[in-house]
Amino acid sequence: MAVQTAETATNPTVDLGPAAALSCRECGHRVPLGPVFACEECFGPLEIAYDFSDYDTEELRKRIEAGPANIWRYAPLLPVPADVATKPNINPGWTKLVQADNLARELGVTGGLYVKDDSGNPTHSFKDRVVAQAIEAARAFGFTTLSCSSTGNLAGAVGAAAARAGFRSCVFIPHDLEQGKVVMAAVYGGELVGIEGNYDDVNRFCSELIGDPAGEGWGFVNVNLRPYYAEGSKTLAYEICEQLGWKLPDQIVVPIASGSQLTKIDKGLKELIELGLVEDKPYKIFGAQAEGCSPVSTAYKAGHDVVRPQKPNTIAKSLAIGNPADGPYVLDIARRTGGAVEDVTDEQVVDAIKLLARTEGIFAETAGGVTVGVTKKLIENGVLDPSLTTVVLNTGDGLKTLDAVAGTGLTATIRPNLDSFREAGLA
Amino acid sequence: MAVQTAETATNPTVDLGPAAALSCRECGHRVPLGPVFACEECFGPLEIAYDFSDYDTEELRKRIEAGPANIWRYAPLLPVPADVATKPNINPGWTKLVQADNLARELGVTGGLYVKDDSGNPTHSFKDRVVAQAIEAARAFGFTTLSCSSTGNLAGAVGAAAARAGFRSCVFIPHDLEQGKVVMAAVYGGELVGIEGNYDDVNRFCSELIGDPAGEGWGFVNVNLRPYYAEGSKTLAYEICEQLGWKLPDQIVVPIASGSQLTKIDKGLKELIELGLVEDKPYKIFGAQAEGCSPVSTAYKAGHDVVRPQKPNTIAKSLAIGNPADGPYVLDIARRTGGAVEDVTDEQVVDAIKLLARTEGIFAETAGGVTVGVTKKLIENGVLDPSLTTVVLNTGDGLKTLDAVAGTGLTATIRPNLDSFREAGLA
Repeated sequence: MAVQTAETATNPTVDLGPAAALSCRECGHRVPLGPVFACEECFGPLEIAYDFSDYDTEELRKRIEAGPANIWRYAPLLPVPADVATKPNINPGWTKLVQADNLARELGVTGGLYVKDDSGNPTHSFKDRVVAQAIEAARAFGFTTLSCSSTGNLAGAVGAAAARAGFRSCVFIPHDLEQGKVVMAAVYGGELVGIEGNYDDVNRFCSELIGDPAGEGWGFVNVNLRPYYAEGSKTLAYEICEQLGWKLPDQIVVPIASGSQLTKIDKGLKELIELGLVEDKPYKIFGAQAEGCSPVSTAYKAGHDVVRPQKPNTIAKSLAIGNPADGPYVLDIARRTGGAVEDVTDEQVVDAIKLLARTEGIFAETAGGVTVGVTKKLIENGVLDPSLTTVVLNTGDGLKTLDAVAGTGLTATIRPNLDSFREAGLA
Repeated sequence: MAVQTAETATNPTVDLGPAAALSCRECGHRVPLGPVFACEECFGPLEIAYDFSDYDTEELRKRIEAGPANIWRYAPLLPVPADVATKPNINPGWTKLVQADNLARELGVTGGLYVKDDSGNPTHSFKDRVVAQAIEAARAFGFTTLSCSSTGNLAGAVGAAAARAGFRSCVFIPHDLEQGKVVMAAVYGGELVGIEGNYDDVNRFCSELIGDPAGEGWGFVNVNLRPYYAEGSKTLAYEICEQLGWKLPDQIVVPIASGSQLTKIDKGLKELIELGLVEDKPYKIFGAQAEGCSPVSTAYKAGHDVVRPQKPNTIAKSLAIGNPADGPYVLDIARRTGGAVEDVTDEQVVDAIKLLARTEGIFAETAGGVTVGVTKKLIENGVLDPSLTTVVLNTGDGLKTLDAVAGTGLTATIRPNLDSFREAGLA
């Protein structure tokens, strides 16, 4: 992993630990660390390039294992200063890797099945991981306001993290969101601005604001802070491997929204191999979408390298990105690792949420229904090998998408006496 | 801590680790471990008596520190078998102890303020701790069905834990609960039975069922398994002290529903002192209630030793027990430790939920609003000393009581352009 110290020296005031520069994923052009996200040469996406050259494998492993029970145990591998754990942040991560023996039995998995349950994060979705990174980048770049456009999980994650870290927050949402979602985002006390328009209008407005003096000092977590933000998903890969006893899983099933999470999980696994923290062996990454928003799965099945945008229509709203920015990279990773991309219907999503709940006591968001449902389908189709160690991601919490399982209810209604109880056949 | 091996020998098939017998809290009469909850001599409540005599302090400390990141790290101090961590359970606990510097500044606390945030548990309330204990007792006694009466958090905790541990579950609730609460409890796939009547009717029916052959093989977590179940709250005390670096806090603020949690936290702290795991020094325990259900606080202020039942009328529904079984013990502990019992209005509960969210990014259930609100009031009244280390419990998750903060909403609505943004004064 090469370093270009000349370039990083142009921004000596920024201490983001092992992050050395920003590097274009398309053309490799490098620029100093800063709040930029697109390559000035080719408009490709910028990502973090690290300097890990000083690390001794066993020292690093010990340092990680002695670290806190959150993502900051991996600070040496993230774009954050070494003393990050002492700064106010909501400290997500180190969520449970649940050994899902009951679910394995139902699905016929014999090689070990695990659910990485990110509903255990502070605001109950994996978004806390990425926002925690963005907070540290915002600190480094001197931003005072944290912002994003959102229709759900991200709004809560930004509101909570900004409150604790001492940032002003200003989150933009479509003005007609459901009351429950508004409350979840508003309770943290930041500015919550309704935009008269749909989610696309909200996004367009945010892009306009970034280019305007009015947006000065504003860090948009998933726009001008995106290269830093996105790295948070690497921690899912790190945790899974460490929780498996520093072993790579054979197969991972990851939900696809923008596709960023899947690409960063791949990046994280590759880093662990290169650093010698896990054995260098093959792994397969599978992408999961809902049929009602399946641009990547459609492209995968058609053998295409590019992704044709779709208009989303699915209950899995946290995955409903019709034009996923990282789609082509996901296709590449799924093909290169021997994985696949598959989709399931909304009905299968609901069935999978219930299946996971009744077998493992985990109440997943619709995104978790998508990954469990796709896992089931891939096994039935002979694509996913049930004799191999498999990890399925649940990235959110069922309490936030109660509507999806609103049909679930009482199994019986009785009068408060034993006769009525016996009549109902419950004894 | 004495042991009566003769009595435990009468039930040699039950291995619940260091649990030696059941002991009456009123008269001290001891009986073998079994699914009983009331003393046959005086009808007083039974609780677990332990044999900790073999423990070496530093060995025990090392064993705990090397244990899993959940309550089972304290298995040597709980009524569970030594291999409990290998059995299917939802493994709650080891939730965050958040150093709440922002909240401390607002409240004027200088001695260190911490929030023990139990919303990080698997079903997002402290109930997971107690149900996890009940599961192990149910296993030991050969029960096959897990049951409870509930109007909220407990139903979900029992449903989830039973699903994962392989028990049938049958949860009884009033038939006319809000749809959201029904869904949260029903999703785990157990029997969810609506009783035509109110919560008191549900409870009465459950008592009837325990005494009937139809209830054979049924473990009611908070009735015939209550002595085991209740011990789960000790883990809050253990975690707080370990997370403070094996130190006792000076002051703890605990919500009061039945009062069981507060008494078990006191028991846990005393055990840590007796075992030498923390220094023997004074600590104060404060109880927190909502004004609309404040039987213990009312008795405390009146100087009474007994608690007069009230008809609950508060938004803090998870604390709305009008006739709290452990009320007298709570009064005793608050007075003995130099603490107090206080209550706050529903309006103060809502303000406190918002205060905690905007300072620390923690979205608490109404019960958390009660403890934070009471902490604020106790400081203002000069009862709680702001120069001492203080821990406030948040026992549940705001996502489950969204109605309480339903008034929270958009801070502005604008058209998707910069002029509208500037007019709103958001720049």
